[in-house]
Amino acid sequence: MENKIDQKHKQKMQLLKSKVDASIAAATIKKGVGILLTGDGKGKSSSALGMALRSLGYGYKVGIVQFIKGAQPSGEAKFFSEIVSNATFYQMGTGFTWETQDRSKDVKAAEASWEVAAKMLSDDAYHLVILDELTYMISFGYLDEERVIKALTQRPKKQSVVVTGRGGGKALKDWADTVSEVRDIKHAFNSGIMALEGVDF
Amino acid sequence: MENKIDQKHKQKMQLLKSKVDASIAAATIKKGVGILLTGDGKGKSSSALGMALRSLGYGYKVGIVQFIKGAQPSGEAKFFSEIVSNATFYQMGTGFTWETQDRSKDVKAAEASWEVAAKMLSDDAYHLVILDELTYMISFGYLDEERVIKALTQRPKKQSVVVTGRGGGKALKDWADTVSEVRDIKHAFNSGIMALEGVDF
Repeated sequence: MENKIDQKHKQKMQLLKSKVDASIAAATIKKGVGILLTGDGKGKSSSALGMALRSLGYGYKVGIVQFIKGAQPSGEAKFFSEIVSNATFYQMGTGFTWETQDRSKDVKAAEASWEVAAKMLSDDAYHLVILDELTYMISFGYLDEERVIKALTQRPKKQSVVVTGRGGGKALKDWADTVSEVRDIKHAFNSGIMALEGVDF
Repeated sequence: MENKIDQKHKQKMQLLKSKVDASIAAATIKKGVGILLTGDGKGKSSSALGMALRSLGYGYKVGIVQFIKGAQPSGEAKFFSEIVSNATFYQMGTGFTWETQDRSKDVKAAEASWEVAAKMLSDDAYHLVILDELTYMISFGYLDEERVIKALTQRPKKQSVVVTGRGGGKALKDWADTVSEVRDIKHAFNSGIMALEGVDF
């Protein structure tokens, strides 16, 4: 009986393998990818950081600009200041707009952060560039969308870029090779559970 | 004119702040969280790895069991063998079912991997435990769902656990405090772009 299940499994898997192999063979373009991680669920920034971890594993140089973030301590800030050296980590540092309550100051900080990002996007030493929460800078009107898309499009051919944040707009979605929408099915915070070190920040 | 925009912005942000502060004040439970990252889009395993990076930043111990994965080299495998020491990283190592084509061997490998996971889930030295691709072990019938849920539920109170993989079933969704569904809006692979070191693996 068990043997029959095993045999059936083998046949099914042989068929599946031929399909998978064909689709792998069809993917022949080798270039850096543009990834947009959007949606209202947990896991966009952490997903970008996970790709950073993978790149660091291979010894690749990683550049990270976190828009908004930086007013509060975080695991990633500690990681990039204390544990690895093969990365450039920059935080806008203002905190959320409802904390600063100062639009002009936020715009200036966004501009300064963009300067750092734009440098990374023109430097082929960076295998992976992460622009965390960038979508808000566009939707708030803090950064000019056209300028952002231009820099993303004209980046080095082998460089991959991950943009995170809710929304993102049509131009960013058109630019991206991969778009994932992280949907919030359920969130611990809504059940009264506090945000956690090493998980949420 | 600019000044008026700034003033309006400030008023809006003050109102928003009071709302945000109230919701933060309402979250009073401090405990480890269970997170399920499901759906067909890119970013589930990388999101789990990003949380690992955050935990490592704080100096917390991390345990990772990757079901299925390990037959191919990966950035995370290199990262955890060469760069950090404060983590236990274990891979089932069989590769995809369509590669092994051997159900009995896969089941044995799943059992051996679960032993490693179960130990982590009963050891409060681990701040964060990642069970990557675990959902398939349940949907394939390689691991008993009830046994898995029991171990997840009885883990140390301060320990957080991230489970990844498509599907997941009702029991896992009920167990989790946070569930995110990563939807595939667009994937580079489907445009013929190869999977990339430091991004996809």
